[in-house]
Amino acid sequence: MVTIRDVAKEAGVSVATVSRVLNSTGYVKEDTRVRVMNTIQKLNYSPNEVARSLYTRESRLIGLLLPDITNPFFPQLARGIEDEVHSHGFRLILGNSDEQLEKELTYLQTFTQNHVVGMITATTSLAQKLYEGLTFPVVFLDRSSDQYPSVYADGFEGGKLAAEEIIKRGSKRITLIKGPVNVKPAQERFQGSLSVLSQSDADFYVLNTNSLAFDDAQKWAKEIFQKYPETDGIIASNDIVAAAVLHEAFRLEKSVPDDLQVIGFDDIPQSRFSFPALSTIRQPAYEMGKQAACLLMKCIKKEPLIQKQVQLPVTFIERNTTRKVEEHG
Amino acid sequence: MVTIRDVAKEAGVSVATVSRVLNSTGYVKEDTRVRVMNTIQKLNYSPNEVARSLYTRESRLIGLLLPDITNPFFPQLARGIEDEVHSHGFRLILGNSDEQLEKELTYLQTFTQNHVVGMITATTSLAQKLYEGLTFPVVFLDRSSDQYPSVYADGFEGGKLAAEEIIKRGSKRITLIKGPVNVKPAQERFQGSLSVLSQSDADFYVLNTNSLAFDDAQKWAKEIFQKYPETDGIIASNDIVAAAVLHEAFRLEKSVPDDLQVIGFDDIPQSRFSFPALSTIRQPAYEMGKQAACLLMKCIKKEPLIQKQVQLPVTFIERNTTRKVEEHG
Repeated sequence: MVTIRDVAKEAGVSVATVSRVLNSTGYVKEDTRVRVMNTIQKLNYSPNEVARSLYTRESRLIGLLLPDITNPFFPQLARGIEDEVHSHGFRLILGNSDEQLEKELTYLQTFTQNHVVGMITATTSLAQKLYEGLTFPVVFLDRSSDQYPSVYADGFEGGKLAAEEIIKRGSKRITLIKGPVNVKPAQERFQGSLSVLSQSDADFYVLNTNSLAFDDAQKWAKEIFQKYPETDGIIASNDIVAAAVLHEAFRLEKSVPDDLQVIGFDDIPQSRFSFPALSTIRQPAYEMGKQAACLLMKCIKKEPLIQKQVQLPVTFIERNTTRKVEEHG
Repeated sequence: MVTIRDVAKEAGVSVATVSRVLNSTGYVKEDTRVRVMNTIQKLNYSPNEVARSLYTRESRLIGLLLPDITNPFFPQLARGIEDEVHSHGFRLILGNSDEQLEKELTYLQTFTQNHVVGMITATTSLAQKLYEGLTFPVVFLDRSSDQYPSVYADGFEGGKLAAEEIIKRGSKRITLIKGPVNVKPAQERFQGSLSVLSQSDADFYVLNTNSLAFDDAQKWAKEIFQKYPETDGIIASNDIVAAAVLHEAFRLEKSVPDDLQVIGFDDIPQSRFSFPALSTIRQPAYEMGKQAACLLMKCIKKEPLIQKQVQLPVTFIERNTTRKVEEHG
């Protein structure tokens, strides 16, 4: 097999130079770079790991099933997974389920057909029963499971935290946005908030919604201020819904956080740039992805799992859509 | 092979009911749903297309190489691609290159090794020469190419449009943020803006940057107001950078759009929720993804390409970070 040394020799440069060209690091003269590239092509050189597995018949593919990559929470998960599996020489087949059974079944078939060595699913798993028949390990991500290794954030605790923080900061007429019934983590955080609100002396209003998507969020936002105009605190089902709420609040010239506090959920990268910057409950998305990939790697390598369920902590990120505790504590 | 009719017969329900269960559409009684699901599992039924290709040896995989899925522009592209290829029974292997040659080479090998039937690349293609040796068709996305079929937005025109609109609305001391030198579409839009600014009577300042990522954007934003405090109009290299600029402008208590106008590029879904809502140059990301997938499907099916280069138009989306033309026109 062609090695990096063969390339260096043929191109008349050092191994370090070939490495610099491959990694786009350090300075390499343009004509040297072109010569190295041409040599790589001529010798059909492919770097390390992957080249080796060309000679084995082992697949290095891992299936990843997400609800919808256009929700900004999921690219973070996906990057955490990819960075981890990439370092072990594995690659991802990506599928979006849109929480539909047929798409989920189709991807299960695709993964099987392509001999994936394992799978990570962050979807609602309407076909959970079908997973029993799979011949490769499965890790659940952003979903808890008694049966399968799983990595998830403590949604119930996150929901509690959101309600506690908004009450502590003086909201008395709180709106709790209930996410879609079929999205389990959204329901867990809803239940967490509900448990705190129902034991508090705050009035509260629950708004039913059936989506966490951009295009619907503006509709919910308008609905809240029509149905409960005197609300002074809103716990949103995720940061996207919170962003839409903030936007509508400004349109109505409400003063945030003085007259209205807003708390999101997820801490997607955009939230720190909203104005005011969004206070939210942070799920460590990238870390969750990484941990799920670590669990799956262990399953694939048949190493013992010390911990089958990994629950990561959530944290309250205090920014400017909530008041300071001193003012109201 | 097991068909949907076999499932219906075995479960004692109509084909329409099985279909409703599969598609999660319409009402199905819970015990019926469970019975259908159990039957699907028992008979090991898999819907249509994919099941058939289990019996052929043809791969139904398409490689997709992106710079970084956590930049919110790319999930839109990816969804456009996936929705199109999914409807033809194809699936995606996803790779992020981080614009690094080694990662790009690794994914080219992965795609080859997994017998993909085609590939879409939205990365800078540092290994463009190596693409010549591939045995499957390649479509370039968000990058123009003389050699390969490609789909891209008119970046030069977009850059011109941004400069024209900000000048038309009264900015006189304009900051132009120059995106990374190695990202071709960023350079095209930079050149477009530059061509208009250099022929205008506005003063302008060019800020060099080497990234389009979240974590760097706040740094550029601070830098602008330190280096050119009197600037009254900023053309950002993308919406993420624009969001960071807006955030910093508010921190400095600048009035947008009265004292400072800001124009982004991309129109990512979050931009309409910023406050003020971001005026920007829209690239039709989802549509670009779909069109690239359509081109690739034609290549795979060996149909003639009527048009090898598809350039999609960009549009100015007027929101609230720019002034109205009447006020200054």
